[in-house]
Amino acid sequence: MSSLVEQAKKAAAFKAVDENFPKSAKVVGVGSGSTVVYVAERLGQLPNKSSFVCIPTGFQSKQLIIDNGLNLGSIEQFPNVDIAFDGADEVDSDLNLIKGGGACLFQEKLVAASANTFIVVADYRKQSPTKLGKNWTQGVPIEVVPNSYVSVTRQLKEKLGAKSINLRQGGSAKAGPVVTDNNNFLLDADFGEIQDPKSLHSEIKLLVGVVETGLFTSIAKKVYFGEESGEVTIW
Amino acid sequence: MSSLVEQAKKAAAFKAVDENFPKSAKVVGVGSGSTVVYVAERLGQLPNKSSFVCIPTGFQSKQLIIDNGLNLGSIEQFPNVDIAFDGADEVDSDLNLIKGGGACLFQEKLVAASANTFIVVADYRKQSPTKLGKNWTQGVPIEVVPNSYVSVTRQLKEKLGAKSINLRQGGSAKAGPVVTDNNNFLLDADFGEIQDPKSLHSEIKLLVGVVETGLFTSIAKKVYFGEESGEVTIW
Repeated sequence: MSSLVEQAKKAAAFKAVDENFPKSAKVVGVGSGSTVVYVAERLGQLPNKSSFVCIPTGFQSKQLIIDNGLNLGSIEQFPNVDIAFDGADEVDSDLNLIKGGGACLFQEKLVAASANTFIVVADYRKQSPTKLGKNWTQGVPIEVVPNSYVSVTRQLKEKLGAKSINLRQGGSAKAGPVVTDNNNFLLDADFGEIQDPKSLHSEIKLLVGVVETGLFTSIAKKVYFGEESGEVTIW
Repeated sequence: MSSLVEQAKKAAAFKAVDENFPKSAKVVGVGSGSTVVYVAERLGQLPNKSSFVCIPTGFQSKQLIIDNGLNLGSIEQFPNVDIAFDGADEVDSDLNLIKGGGACLFQEKLVAASANTFIVVADYRKQSPTKLGKNWTQGVPIEVVPNSYVSVTRQLKEKLGAKSINLRQGGSAKAGPVVTDNNNFLLDADFGEIQDPKSLHSEIKLLVGVVETGLFTSIAKKVYFGEESGEVTIW
Protein backbone atom coordinates (compact mmCIF):
# COMPACT_ATOMS: atom_id res chain seq x y z
CA MET A 1 0.00 0.00 0.00
CA SER A 2 1.18 3.54 -0.71
CA SER A 3 2.68 5.54 2.09
CA LEU A 4 -0.25 7.97 1.66
CA VAL A 5 -2.70 5.28 2.78
CA GLU A 6 -0.41 4.23 5.57
CA GLN A 7 -0.27 7.82 6.79
CA ALA A 8 -4.06 8.00 6.56
CA LYS A 9 -4.48 4.83 8.60
CA LYS A 10 -2.25 6.26 11.28
CA ALA A 11 -4.14 9.56 11.19
CA ALA A 12 -7.47 7.72 11.39
CA ALA A 13 -6.32 5.67 14.39
CA PHE A 14 -4.91 8.70 16.24
CA LYS A 15 -8.09 10.69 15.53
CA ALA A 16 -10.24 7.78 16.73
CA VAL A 17 -8.39 7.72 20.04
CA ASP A 18 -8.16 11.49 20.46
CA GLU A 19 -11.83 12.15 19.72
CA ASN A 20 -13.31 9.29 21.71
CA PHE A 21 -11.08 8.17 24.56
CA PRO A 22 -12.71 9.17 27.86
CA LYS A 23 -10.13 10.56 30.29
CA SER A 24 -11.74 8.56 33.07
CA ALA A 25 -11.52 5.23 31.16
CA LYS A 26 -10.37 2.36 33.34
CA VAL A 27 -10.89 -0.56 30.94
CA VAL A 28 -10.05 -0.35 27.22
CA GLY A 29 -10.54 -3.03 24.56
CA VAL A 30 -7.75 -3.28 21.99
CA GLY A 31 -8.31 -5.36 18.88
CA SER A 32 -5.97 -6.18 16.03
CA GLY A 33 -5.34 -5.35 12.40
CA SER A 34 -3.02 -3.04 10.49
CA THR A 35 -4.87 0.14 11.53
CA VAL A 36 -5.33 -0.89 15.18
CA VAL A 37 -1.53 -1.05 15.43
CA TYR A 38 -1.65 2.78 15.44
CA VAL A 39 -4.45 2.81 18.04
CA ALA A 40 -2.19 0.87 20.40
CA GLU A 41 0.66 3.26 19.61
CA ARG A 42 -1.53 6.25 20.44
CA LEU A 43 -2.81 4.67 23.67
CA GLY A 44 0.83 4.08 24.64
CA GLN A 45 1.51 7.81 24.25
CA LEU A 46 -1.24 8.85 26.68
CA PRO A 47 0.15 10.42 29.84
CA ASN A 48 -2.32 8.44 31.98
CA LYS A 49 -1.54 5.08 30.35
CA SER A 50 -0.84 3.47 33.72
CA SER A 51 -4.35 4.31 34.94
CA PHE A 52 -6.25 1.94 32.65
CA VAL A 53 -6.09 -1.73 31.77
CA CYS A 54 -6.32 -3.07 28.20
CA ILE A 55 -8.33 -6.17 27.24
CA PRO A 56 -7.02 -8.06 24.22
CA THR A 57 -9.11 -9.81 21.56
CA GLY A 58 -6.49 -12.38 20.55
CA PHE A 59 -2.79 -13.10 20.27
CA GLN A 60 -1.71 -10.20 18.02
CA SER A 61 -3.77 -7.86 20.13
CA LYS A 62 -2.07 -9.06 23.33
CA GLN A 63 1.33 -8.42 21.75
CA LEU A 64 0.29 -4.88 20.75
CA ILE A 65 -0.73 -4.14 24.34
CA ILE A 66 2.52 -5.48 25.76
CA ASP A 67 4.73 -3.86 23.09
CA ASN A 68 3.23 -0.44 23.81
CA GLY A 69 3.80 -0.70 27.55
CA LEU A 70 0.09 -0.86 28.37
CA ASN A 71 -1.48 -2.78 31.29
CA LEU A 72 -2.86 -6.16 30.23
CA GLY A 73 -6.14 -7.46 31.70
CA SER A 74 -8.75 -10.15 31.06
CA ILE A 75 -12.43 -9.80 30.23
CA GLU A 76 -13.46 -12.09 33.11
CA GLN A 77 -11.78 -9.77 35.57
CA PHE A 78 -12.93 -6.54 33.88
CA PRO A 79 -16.29 -7.28 32.23
CA ASN A 80 -17.23 -3.58 32.03
CA VAL A 81 -15.25 -2.13 29.13
CA ASP A 82 -15.39 1.67 28.83
CA ILE A 83 -14.28 1.86 25.22
CA ALA A 84 -12.99 -0.63 22.66
CA PHE A 85 -11.16 -0.13 19.34
CA ASP A 86 -10.95 -2.77 16.63
CA GLY A 87 -10.67 -3.24 12.89
CA ALA A 88 -13.21 -4.78 10.49
CA ASP A 89 -13.12 -6.73 7.24
CA GLU A 90 -16.13 -4.92 5.82
CA VAL A 91 -18.34 -2.01 6.94
CA ASP A 92 -21.66 -0.84 5.50
CA SER A 93 -23.16 2.62 5.83
CA ASP A 94 -25.38 1.51 8.75
CA LEU A 95 -22.13 0.53 10.53
CA ASN A 96 -22.85 -3.19 10.31
CA LEU A 97 -19.57 -5.08 10.18
CA ILE A 98 -18.13 -8.36 9.00
CA LYS A 99 -15.21 -9.51 11.13
CA GLY A 100 -13.34 -12.75 11.64
CA GLY A 101 -10.83 -12.87 8.83
CA GLY A 102 -8.19 -13.23 11.53
CA ALA A 103 -10.06 -16.10 13.26
CA CYS A 104 -10.55 -14.14 16.52
CA LEU A 105 -14.18 -13.16 16.01
CA PHE A 106 -15.42 -14.66 19.26
CA GLN A 107 -13.16 -12.70 21.58
CA GLU A 108 -13.57 -9.61 19.37
CA LYS A 109 -17.34 -9.77 19.71
CA LEU A 110 -17.21 -10.47 23.43
CA VAL A 111 -15.05 -7.39 24.01
CA ALA A 112 -17.06 -5.19 21.59
CA ALA A 113 -20.36 -6.27 23.14
CA SER A 114 -18.99 -5.58 26.62
CA ALA A 115 -17.92 -2.05 25.65
CA ASN A 116 -19.83 1.08 26.45
CA THR A 117 -18.45 2.60 23.20
CA PHE A 118 -17.10 0.58 20.28
CA ILE A 119 -15.00 2.40 17.67
CA VAL A 120 -13.80 0.83 14.42
CA VAL A 121 -10.65 1.83 12.53
CA ALA A 122 -9.83 0.51 9.06
CA ASP A 123 -8.58 1.42 5.62
CA TYR A 124 -10.87 2.49 2.76
CA ARG A 125 -10.88 -0.97 1.15
CA LYS A 126 -13.20 -2.16 3.92
CA GLN A 127 -16.02 0.15 2.83
CA SER A 128 -19.18 -1.44 1.40
CA PRO A 129 -21.48 1.59 1.26
CA THR A 130 -24.62 -0.28 0.18
CA LYS A 131 -24.73 -3.84 1.49
CA LEU A 132 -22.34 -6.14 3.30
CA GLY A 133 -21.16 -8.97 1.13
CA LYS A 134 -20.36 -6.76 -1.85
CA ASN A 135 -16.61 -6.43 -1.50
CA TRP A 136 -16.03 -9.52 0.51
CA THR A 137 -15.03 -12.68 -1.24
CA GLN A 138 -14.47 -14.91 1.79
CA GLY A 139 -18.01 -14.80 3.19
CA VAL A 140 -19.31 -14.54 6.74
CA PRO A 141 -16.98 -16.25 9.22
CA ILE A 142 -18.88 -18.58 11.58
CA GLU A 143 -17.29 -20.26 14.60
CA VAL A 144 -18.68 -23.77 15.18
CA VAL A 145 -18.17 -26.62 17.63
CA PRO A 146 -15.96 -29.03 15.63
CA ASN A 147 -18.25 -32.06 15.52
CA SER A 148 -21.19 -29.98 14.28
CA TYR A 149 -19.53 -28.55 11.17
CA VAL A 150 -21.20 -31.04 8.80
CA SER A 151 -24.64 -30.39 10.28
CA VAL A 152 -24.17 -26.59 10.32
CA THR A 153 -22.81 -26.55 6.75
CA ARG A 154 -25.89 -28.39 5.53
CA GLN A 155 -28.29 -26.08 7.35
CA LEU A 156 -26.51 -22.93 6.13
CA LYS A 157 -27.01 -24.19 2.61
CA GLU A 158 -30.48 -25.72 2.84
CA LYS A 159 -32.21 -23.48 5.39
CA LEU A 160 -30.37 -20.17 5.04
CA GLY A 161 -29.45 -20.19 1.35
CA ALA A 162 -25.66 -19.86 1.54
CA LYS A 163 -24.16 -20.05 -1.94
CA SER A 164 -20.95 -21.70 -0.84
CA ILE A 165 -19.38 -22.70 2.46
CA ASN A 166 -15.76 -23.50 3.24
CA LEU A 167 -14.29 -25.08 6.32
CA ARG A 168 -11.35 -22.71 6.81
CA GLN A 169 -8.02 -24.49 6.40
CA GLY A 170 -4.70 -23.74 8.09
CA GLY A 171 -1.76 -22.33 6.18
CA SER A 172 0.65 -24.46 4.21
CA ALA A 173 2.45 -25.39 7.42
CA LYS A 174 -0.65 -26.92 8.96
CA ALA A 175 -2.76 -29.64 7.41
CA GLY A 176 -6.39 -29.59 8.47
CA PRO A 177 -8.83 -26.93 9.62
CA VAL A 178 -7.97 -23.72 11.48
CA VAL A 179 -8.62 -24.17 15.19
CA THR A 180 -9.75 -21.04 17.09
CA ASP A 181 -8.66 -19.93 20.56
CA ASN A 182 -11.75 -21.78 21.83
CA ASN A 183 -10.77 -25.02 20.05
CA ASN A 184 -13.52 -24.58 17.49
CA PHE A 185 -13.60 -24.57 13.68
CA LEU A 186 -14.46 -21.72 11.29
CA LEU A 187 -16.83 -21.87 8.35
CA ASP A 188 -16.78 -19.08 5.76
CA ALA A 189 -20.26 -18.83 4.26
CA ASP A 190 -20.96 -16.74 1.18
CA PHE A 191 -24.48 -15.26 1.20
CA GLY A 192 -23.86 -12.70 -1.59
CA GLU A 193 -25.14 -9.22 -0.72
CA ILE A 194 -26.68 -9.34 2.73
CA GLN A 195 -30.09 -7.64 2.93
CA ASP A 196 -30.61 -7.85 6.70
CA PRO A 197 -27.42 -8.59 8.63
CA LYS A 198 -29.15 -8.60 12.05
CA SER A 199 -31.69 -11.26 11.06
CA LEU A 200 -29.07 -13.30 9.27
CA HIS A 201 -26.88 -13.25 12.38
CA SER A 202 -29.77 -14.50 14.56
CA GLU A 203 -30.72 -17.24 12.13
CA ILE A 204 -27.13 -18.49 11.97
CA LYS A 205 -26.47 -18.23 15.71
CA LEU A 206 -29.62 -20.22 16.53
CA LEU A 207 -28.33 -23.27 14.60
CA VAL A 208 -27.11 -26.02 16.95
CA GLY A 209 -23.32 -25.92 16.83
CA VAL A 210 -22.83 -22.23 16.08
CA VAL A 211 -20.81 -20.43 18.76
CA GLU A 212 -20.68 -16.99 17.15
CA THR A 213 -20.84 -15.23 13.79
CA GLY A 214 -18.70 -12.50 12.25
CA LEU A 215 -21.72 -10.24 11.69
CA PHE A 216 -21.48 -7.32 14.12
CA THR A 217 -24.71 -5.33 14.03
CA SER A 218 -25.91 -2.42 16.20
CA ILE A 219 -22.60 -2.38 17.97
CA ALA A 220 -20.18 0.07 16.26
CA LYS A 221 -20.64 3.73 17.18
CA LYS A 222 -18.23 5.29 14.65
CA VAL A 223 -15.84 4.08 11.97
CA TYR A 224 -12.62 5.92 11.06
CA PHE A 225 -11.21 5.10 7.62
CA GLY A 226 -7.78 5.89 6.22
CA GLU A 227 -8.37 6.85 2.57
CA GLU A 228 -6.17 6.20 -0.47
CA SER A 229 -5.76 9.97 -0.83
CA GLY A 230 -4.28 10.26 2.65
CA GLU A 231 -7.49 11.72 4.12
CA VAL A 232 -9.48 10.39 7.08
CA THR A 233 -13.18 9.65 6.59
CA ILE A 234 -15.54 9.17 9.50
CA TRP A 235 -18.81 7.22 9.19
CA MET B 1 -36.34 -46.40 43.70
CA SER B 2 -38.80 -49.28 44.04
CA SER B 3 -38.47 -52.26 41.76
CA LEU B 4 -41.93 -51.38 40.38
CA VAL B 5 -40.58 -48.10 38.95
CA GLU B 6 -37.51 -49.85 37.68
CA GLN B 7 -39.71 -52.38 35.88
CA ALA B 8 -41.77 -49.52 34.48
CA LYS B 9 -38.66 -47.72 33.19
CA LYS B 10 -37.60 -50.89 31.42
CA ALA B 11 -41.08 -51.39 30.01
CA ALA B 12 -41.19 -47.74 28.85
CA ALA B 13 -37.82 -48.06 27.13
CA PHE B 14 -38.69 -51.35 25.42
CA LYS B 15 -42.05 -49.94 24.29
CA ALA B 16 -40.35 -46.80 22.97
CA VAL B 17 -38.04 -48.91 20.83
CA ASP B 18 -40.65 -51.44 19.73
CA GLU B 19 -43.23 -48.83 18.74
CA ASN B 20 -40.90 -46.40 16.97
CA PHE B 21 -37.80 -48.07 15.64
CA PRO B 22 -37.97 -48.12 11.84
CA LYS B 23 -36.79 -51.47 10.46
CA SER B 24 -34.87 -49.62 7.76
CA ALA B 25 -33.01 -47.40 10.26
CA LYS B 26 -29.32 -47.03 9.43
CA VAL B 27 -28.33 -44.35 11.98
CA VAL B 28 -29.63 -44.32 15.58
CA GLY B 29 -28.92 -41.76 18.30
CA VAL B 30 -28.44 -43.21 21.78
CA GLY B 31 -28.40 -40.85 24.75
CA SER B 32 -27.83 -41.57 28.41
CA GLY B 33 -29.68 -41.77 31.70
CA SER B 34 -31.14 -44.55 33.84
CA THR B 35 -34.05 -45.25 31.46
CA VAL B 36 -31.95 -45.05 28.27
CA VAL B 37 -29.90 -47.93 29.65
CA TYR B 38 -32.88 -50.12 28.76
CA VAL B 39 -33.19 -48.56 25.31
CA ALA B 40 -29.62 -49.65 24.58
CA GLU B 41 -30.41 -53.12 25.96
CA ARG B 42 -33.43 -53.40 23.66
CA LEU B 43 -31.49 -52.15 20.62
CA GLY B 44 -28.87 -54.81 21.40
CA GLN B 45 -31.57 -57.48 21.22
CA LEU B 46 -32.69 -56.51 17.71
CA PRO B 47 -31.91 -59.22 15.14
CA ASN B 48 -30.68 -56.59 12.65
CA LYS B 49 -28.40 -54.83 15.15
CA SER B 50 -25.42 -55.12 12.83
CA SER B 51 -27.24 -53.18 10.10
CA PHE B 52 -27.31 -49.80 11.86
CA VAL B 53 -24.75 -47.53 13.50
CA CYS B 54 -25.33 -45.78 16.85
CA ILE B 55 -24.31 -42.16 17.52
CA PRO B 56 -23.48 -41.38 21.16
CA THR B 57 -24.24 -38.15 23.01
CA GLY B 58 -21.41 -38.43 25.54
CA PHE B 59 -19.21 -40.78 27.49
CA GLN B 60 -21.86 -42.87 29.29
CA SER B 61 -23.78 -43.13 26.06
CA LYS B 62 -20.71 -44.42 24.22
CA GLN B 63 -20.22 -47.07 26.88
CA LEU B 64 -23.85 -48.18 26.56
CA ILE B 65 -23.42 -48.62 22.81
CA ILE B 66 -20.23 -50.62 23.20
CA ASP B 67 -21.53 -52.73 26.11
CA ASN B 68 -24.57 -53.78 24.12
CA GLY B 69 -22.55 -54.87 21.11
CA LEU B 70 -23.86 -52.08 18.87
CA ASN B 71 -21.93 -50.35 16.07
CA LEU B 72 -20.44 -47.02 17.16
CA GLY B 73 -20.40 -44.03 14.80
CA SER B 74 -19.87 -40.28 14.85
CA ILE B 75 -22.25 -37.46 13.97
CA GLU B 76 -19.78 -35.93 11.49
CA GLN B 77 -19.73 -39.16 9.52
CA PHE B 78 -23.48 -39.83 9.85
CA PRO B 79 -25.22 -36.44 10.07
CA ASN B 80 -28.61 -37.89 9.05
CA VAL B 81 -29.98 -39.66 12.11
CA ASP B 82 -33.08 -41.77 11.47
CA ILE B 83 -34.20 -41.96 15.10
CA ALA B 84 -32.73 -40.90 18.44
CA PHE B 85 -33.61 -41.90 22.01
CA ASP B 86 -32.60 -39.90 25.08
CA GLY B 87 -33.68 -39.01 28.60
CA ALA B 88 -34.71 -35.62 29.99
CA ASP B 89 -34.53 -33.80 33.30
CA GLU B 90 -37.96 -32.27 32.93
CA VAL B 91 -40.80 -32.57 30.40
CA ASP B 92 -43.92 -30.40 30.03
CA SER B 93 -47.17 -31.40 28.35
CA ASP B 94 -46.16 -29.64 25.11
CA LEU B 95 -43.09 -31.95 25.09
CA ASN B 96 -40.67 -29.11 25.80
CA LEU B 97 -37.68 -30.48 27.68
CA ILE B 98 -34.95 -29.36 30.03
CA LYS B 99 -31.77 -31.37 29.62
CA GLY B 100 -28.16 -30.99 30.62
CA GLY B 101 -28.02 -32.25 34.20
CA GLY B 102 -25.35 -34.65 32.98
CA ALA B 103 -23.32 -31.86 31.31
CA CYS B 104 -23.70 -33.35 27.80
CA LEU B 105 -26.42 -31.03 26.54
CA PHE B 106 -24.52 -29.88 23.46
CA GLN B 107 -23.97 -33.28 21.94
CA GLU B 108 -27.46 -34.35 23.06
CA LYS B 109 -29.03 -31.42 21.22
CA LEU B 110 -26.87 -31.91 18.14
CA VAL B 111 -27.97 -35.55 17.86
CA ALA B 112 -31.62 -34.80 18.68
CA ALA B 113 -31.75 -31.94 16.17
CA SER B 114 -30.17 -34.18 13.51
CA ALA B 115 -32.77 -36.91 14.06
CA ASN B 116 -35.76 -37.49 11.88
CA THR B 117 -37.62 -38.76 14.98
CA PHE B 118 -36.64 -37.95 18.57
CA ILE B 119 -38.12 -40.12 21.35
CA VAL B 120 -37.67 -39.38 25.06
CA VAL B 121 -37.73 -42.01 27.81
CA ALA B 122 -37.75 -41.09 31.50
CA ASP B 123 -39.27 -41.86 34.88
CA TYR B 124 -42.39 -40.12 36.21
CA ARG B 125 -40.39 -37.70 38.37
CA LYS B 126 -39.44 -35.79 35.22
CA GLN B 127 -43.05 -34.77 34.51
CA SER B 128 -43.96 -31.07 34.79
CA PRO B 129 -47.45 -31.08 33.30
CA THR B 130 -47.96 -27.31 33.39
CA LYS B 131 -44.76 -25.36 32.95
CA LEU B 132 -41.07 -26.22 32.84
CA GLY B 133 -39.21 -24.95 35.86
CA LYS B 134 -41.78 -26.26 38.35
CA ASN B 135 -40.09 -29.43 39.50
CA TRP B 136 -36.59 -28.46 38.65
CA THR B 137 -34.39 -26.98 41.29
CA GLN B 138 -31.17 -26.72 39.34
CA GLY B 139 -32.36 -24.33 36.62
CA VAL B 140 -31.70 -24.24 32.89
CA PRO B 141 -28.22 -25.56 32.03
CA ILE B 142 -26.37 -23.21 29.67
CA GLU B 143 -23.04 -24.07 28.02
CA VAL B 144 -20.78 -21.02 27.70
CA VAL B 145 -17.30 -20.24 26.37
CA PRO B 146 -15.21 -20.05 29.57
CA ASN B 147 -14.03 -16.45 29.37
CA SER B 148 -17.57 -15.17 28.80
CA TYR B 149 -19.17 -16.63 31.91
CA VAL B 150 -19.05 -13.34 33.84
CA SER B 151 -20.60 -11.39 30.99
CA VAL B 152 -23.27 -14.05 30.31
CA THR B 153 -24.13 -14.34 34.01
CA ARG B 154 -24.71 -10.62 34.21
CA GLN B 155 -26.90 -10.53 31.11
CA LEU B 156 -28.95 -13.52 32.24
CA LYS B 157 -29.71 -11.63 35.41
CA GLU B 158 -30.11 -8.08 34.09
CA LYS B 159 -31.62 -8.65 30.64
CA LEU B 160 -33.42 -11.98 31.00
CA GLY B 161 -34.49 -11.88 34.64
CA ALA B 162 -32.83 -15.03 35.98
CA LYS B 163 -33.40 -15.32 39.74
CA SER B 164 -30.12 -17.05 40.44
CA ILE B 165 -27.23 -18.37 38.40
CA ASN B 166 -24.55 -20.85 39.39
CA LEU B 167 -21.33 -21.71 37.63
CA ARG B 168 -21.52 -25.50 37.91
CA GLN B 169 -18.72 -26.90 40.03
CA GLY B 170 -17.00 -30.27 39.80
CA GLY B 171 -17.44 -32.98 42.39
CA SER B 172 -15.46 -33.08 45.60
CA ALA B 173 -12.54 -34.63 43.74
CA LYS B 174 -12.23 -31.66 41.39
CA ALA B 175 -11.79 -28.06 42.47
CA GLY B 176 -13.16 -25.53 40.00
CA PRO B 177 -15.90 -25.52 37.39
CA VAL B 178 -17.18 -28.50 35.42
CA VAL B 179 -15.60 -28.53 31.96
CA THR B 180 -17.76 -29.94 29.15
CA ASP B 181 -16.66 -32.20 26.28
CA ASN B 182 -16.19 -28.98 24.27
CA ASN B 183 -13.96 -27.42 26.97
CA ASN B 184 -16.70 -25.01 27.98
CA PHE B 185 -18.33 -24.12 31.32
CA LEU B 186 -21.93 -24.66 32.45
CA LEU B 187 -24.19 -22.10 34.08
CA ASP B 188 -27.39 -23.26 35.80
CA ALA B 189 -29.88 -20.41 35.61
CA ASP B 190 -33.12 -20.45 37.59
CA PHE B 191 -35.95 -18.63 35.78
CA GLY B 192 -38.77 -20.04 37.93
CA GLU B 193 -41.70 -21.34 35.90
CA ILE B 194 -40.92 -20.83 32.23
CA GLN B 195 -43.79 -19.28 30.28
CA ASP B 196 -42.32 -19.54 26.78
CA PRO B 197 -39.41 -21.98 26.54
CA LYS B 198 -38.82 -21.37 22.82
CA SER B 199 -38.40 -17.61 23.21
CA LEU B 200 -36.29 -18.02 26.33
CA HIS B 201 -33.99 -20.41 24.48
CA SER B 202 -33.53 -17.90 21.62
CA GLU B 203 -32.87 -14.99 23.97
CA ILE B 204 -30.25 -16.98 25.86
CA LYS B 205 -28.58 -18.45 22.79
CA LEU B 206 -28.22 -15.01 21.18
CA LEU B 207 -26.06 -13.75 24.08
CA VAL B 208 -22.38 -13.55 23.11
CA GLY B 209 -20.65 -16.51 24.77
CA VAL B 210 -23.58 -18.94 24.84
CA VAL B 211 -22.87 -22.16 22.93
CA GLU B 212 -26.14 -23.98 23.65
CA THR B 213 -28.98 -24.18 26.18
CA GLY B 214 -30.68 -27.14 27.83
CA LEU B 215 -34.12 -26.04 26.59
CA PHE B 216 -35.23 -28.51 23.90
CA THR B 217 -38.37 -27.19 22.20
CA SER B 218 -40.29 -28.49 19.16
CA ILE B 219 -37.98 -31.44 18.96
CA ALA B 220 -39.41 -34.40 20.95
CA LYS B 221 -42.04 -36.43 19.14
CA LYS B 222 -43.15 -38.68 22.02
CA VAL B 223 -42.18 -39.23 25.65
CA TYR B 224 -42.42 -42.63 27.38
CA PHE B 225 -42.55 -42.50 31.19
CA GLY B 226 -42.07 -45.31 33.68
CA GLU B 227 -44.62 -44.64 36.45
CA GLU B 228 -44.33 -45.29 40.19
CA SER B 229 -47.18 -47.80 39.86
CA GLY B 230 -45.26 -49.85 37.33
CA GLU B 231 -47.30 -48.58 34.38
CA VAL B 232 -46.01 -46.88 31.25
CA THR B 233 -47.44 -43.47 30.29
CA ILE B 234 -46.99 -41.98 26.84
CA TRP B 235 -47.19 -38.23 26.17
